[in-house]
Amino acid sequence: MTDIAIVYHSGYGHTKRMAEHVHTGVKAGGATAHLLAIDEHGDLPEADWAKLHAAQAIIFGSPTYMGGASWQFKKFADASSKPWFGQAWKDKFAAGFTNSASINGDKHSTIHYFITLAMQHSMAWIGTGMMPSNAKAATRDDQNYLGSSAGAMAQSPSDSSPDEMPKGDLATAHAFGLRVATFVIAHSKA
Amino acid sequence: MTDIAIVYHSGYGHTKRMAEHVHTGVKAGGATAHLLAIDEHGDLPEADWAKLHAAQAIIFGSPTYMGGASWQFKKFADASSKPWFGQAWKDKFAAGFTNSASINGDKHSTIHYFITLAMQHSMAWIGTGMMPSNAKAATRDDQNYLGSSAGAMAQSPSDSSPDEMPKGDLATAHAFGLRVATFVIAHSKA
Amino acid sequence: MTDIAIVYHSGYGHTKRMAEHVHTGVKAGGATAHLLAIDEHGDLPEADWAKLHAAQAIIFGSPTYMGGASWQFKKFADASSKPWFGQAWKDKFAAGFTNSASINGDKHSTIHYFITLAMQHSMAWIGTGMMPSNAKAATRDDQNYLGSSAGAMAQSPSDSSPDEMPKGDLATAHAFGLRVATFVIAHSKA
Amino acid sequence: MTDIAIVYHSGYGHTKRMAEHVHTGVKAGGATAHLLAIDEHGDLPEADWAKLHAAQAIIFGSPTYMGGASWQFKKFADASSKPWFGQAWKDKFAAGFTNSASINGDKHSTIHYFITLAMQHSMAWIGTGMMPSNAKAATRDDQNYLGSSAGAMAQSPSDSSPDEMPKGDLATAHAFGLRVATFVIAHSKA
Repeated sequence: MTDIAIVYHSGYGHTKRMAEHVHTGVKAGGATAHLLAIDEHGDLPEADWAKLHAAQAIIFGSPTYMGGASWQFKKFADASSKPWFGQAWKDKFAAGFTNSASINGDKHSTIHYFITLAMQHSMAWIGTGMMPSNAKAATRDDQNYLGSSAGAMAQSPSDSSPDEMPKGDLATAHAFGLRVATFVIAHSKA
Repeated sequence: MTDIAIVYHSGYGHTKRMAEHVHTGVKAGGATAHLLAIDEHGDLPEADWAKLHAAQAIIFGSPTYMGGASWQFKKFADASSKPWFGQAWKDKFAAGFTNSASINGDKHSTIHYFITLAMQHSMAWIGTGMMPSNAKAATRDDQNYLGSSAGAMAQSPSDSSPDEMPKGDLATAHAFGLRVATFVIAHSKA
Repeated sequence: MTDIAIVYHSGYGHTKRMAEHVHTGVKAGGATAHLLAIDEHGDLPEADWAKLHAAQAIIFGSPTYMGGASWQFKKFADASSKPWFGQAWKDKFAAGFTNSASINGDKHSTIHYFITLAMQHSMAWIGTGMMPSNAKAATRDDQNYLGSSAGAMAQSPSDSSPDEMPKGDLATAHAFGLRVATFVIAHSKA
Repeated sequence: MTDIAIVYHSGYGHTKRMAEHVHTGVKAGGATAHLLAIDEHGDLPEADWAKLHAAQAIIFGSPTYMGGASWQFKKFADASSKPWFGQAWKDKFAAGFTNSASINGDKHSTIHYFITLAMQHSMAWIGTGMMPSNAKAATRDDQNYLGSSAGAMAQSPSDSSPDEMPKGDLATAHAFGLRVATFVIAHSKA
């Protein structure tokens, strides 16, 4: 059975909700999924680190705050220098997602940071595998309305609760989890 | 009088329309503005290069194609190795804008390339200076609805003509030109 | 047999030499390798496009000029909007390399552009898989002395001919080709 | 008198030493300089935040850890959402520097994060203003041997103490501080 870990930080619950949709997508794709939360201090329990080490793929998730991943996510990333040193995550697959309040809002910067992190770990990066919905008839409820290739994006207005997140972005998160699982299962080492 | 040059490439007319709105914005801000078009072969007339050399600020514009500035813009950028070699543009101000069909669509990548180019020329980079319109009540007609800081963005649906470009994005382009002019006039060397 | 295409542009021969070392590395890794040159006009013969479509992995190569891939490479990338439209390269693996005159010199910018391009094509990205050689005892002849993860880098002094390229960087290019081939063979769809 | 604040985090003392050289450079350039350290918990005293608010320019500094600014620097950046909300830093100048163990080592990623942060604050970005030292005769002691435009870089081997940092990189840091001060003084609003 293919094992995929989703490790994320969420400040106000939006990224958590997005992570949950990625999680159901990964399961729908036929993989065993672990949903691992980095806490408000930027810490992750030892047992969860063990799950990361055991997984075939790791999906990173974070809000975009001030143009990049949250400091709590970065604290986790800095702590990953331990498995990095021995290249313990080498040849795993990696992917990532982010949520922010603005339509663009430098989400690309967060995704590219995730890629940089994955590359230092010698992982292989998988994007959304989705075409954008960008014709005149496109609606906010469409899959990949935000038009992202390198990682999944959600946009939650600055005054919206997690319950009010755009349905299309959550459906995108689900489809993204499914795509990652499908790809990883198909391309895992025989 | 402060002199600002806008140098852009446009493939289908959308970026041209955006450039024209930046142009009126720069003039509204009190500067002399030059609107210079890179042609379909990636060439710029000698007289226009002279205008770039004489300007206090240069604003770069390009569509985002396949995740970056168009090859025609890049050909112009590569040709700028000539003024780069003697650092002829050193200490000028720089800024940039881009249009693409998707809401995100890697426009951030184009803007960050413009910044990288400006930095090689030892220019100083100015962004939009605009807060995003990102509350629940936000509409597509709002200034900076796309939520960009590092450069101005417009999004034209894949099946829309230049005439059909979102009004809010064109107003954003105008406000961006005005902001650049105002900043450059205020901060030009005494 | 696993098929890997290397598609590159070279302005003065340094990137060509690097590409040749990637090529021998790919072959040493057990894959069939195609070395495809984008010409000075940014064009690639139709027969070579067919080889790209048939390959399991595509490795992009370009010098870094003025902070990004050369305009000739970008013209190729823009022309790849044709296979992009039908997502003909979806689920292929991708990787990349670049050469420039400066030790850093914004090579990261070129590699990240390659990644952005690969993501639009829904490809999966593979880096160097190499730890940096960065202790006090490190020498310019070491593998990955330049310390890059996301793609292979070479640095050729501004006044050096292709023959004078640092041996360590060429060895790195070879090892990079070998790593890509090994990864792709191990992870190709059953 | 022009006021410039340098705000940095240092994990093992190398970035601190670099910051001190930036500091002397800023003073040599004729500005009043404030050297402000973010502590190991990612905190900055209130009095230092006040100095940031009062300065005409802010220079960001951080080591590059796991491909980006340290989490402590990011915690500071996230806390800057408070002045961001009211755009208290609007129209200040900004610049940045970083140190890491590898020659490249994704330092570009840290510098581009600094730029993204500065753009959200509506600041104007200044780079090194230095040509690279990249001919065959170049030596590790040269100014800007590392070849960076967008921000100052230093590279300290993984097993070197702060005392053993390359002299050329420290001289580069000094020259960078001087360049920022000179530019800011020349271009401050009349």
